[in-house]
Amino acid sequence: MEVNVINIHEKFNLIGGLHQYKAVARMNDNMFKLVRMNREFIWHSHAETDEVFMVFGGKLIIELRDKTLRLGPGDMVSIPKGVEHKPVSDGECLIMLIEPQATVNTGNAGGALTDDHVEWI
Amino acid sequence: MEVNVINIHEKFNLIGGLHQYKAVARMNDNMFKLVRMNREFIWHSHAETDEVFMVFGGKLIIELRDKTLRLGPGDMVSIPKGVEHKPVSDGECLIMLIEPQATVNTGNAGGALTDDHVEWI
Repeated sequence: MEVNVINIHEKFNLIGGLHQYKAVARMNDNMFKLVRMNREFIWHSHAETDEVFMVFGGKLIIELRDKTLRLGPGDMVSIPKGVEHKPVSDGECLIMLIEPQATVNTGNAGGALTDDHVEWI
Repeated sequence: MEVNVINIHEKFNLIGGLHQYKAVARMNDNMFKLVRMNREFIWHSHAETDEVFMVFGGKLIIELRDKTLRLGPGDMVSIPKGVEHKPVSDGECLIMLIEPQATVNTGNAGGALTDDHVEWI
């Protein structure tokens, strides 16, 4: 396995469209996925795993049932497993997700936004 | 468990000295640790785990047996398990390590630089 430096901003620039999950690195069974987001997502939770969001551009709001988290570049949060959350971008934002490979974006909720296709870039 | 936004640069500013491993987040059994580094580390490998380095300030060189990786802010790399590496900072650099909680900094090598104490900030 070749070991190469990954420039995160260059990788974001390779992503042509919104809401496509792109893998850039792996750590054991965990994936580092990038997504350019500009939408209101749905309420969901992940029964089996925590999920980390790290913001590299724009503003991301994550609604929880008891409060609202606001993230900008340089911010991160770990959403514990089982905690309901609804990500909502404030304009386009650039997000890194760090989570086990098998994690599905809509978690327990399913529905039309479900997308478990992740391409490496 | 309270869910809070973590500003990574603010967390680096809370670290008073060099070479202290500070935890800022967890994702399942994996830890997100920050360290301010200004030294030549030792050759080592981790038999049980991959290890991710993400740079937030300064320059980090990671020597591998077959090449040299050079990382600046916005760069990351995942060192596969078993791969020997020697991190060397070029001046002070600000690093996030992402790895299982039980990972020891010197891996298989041990020695005087071994430090498995991680304090939360």
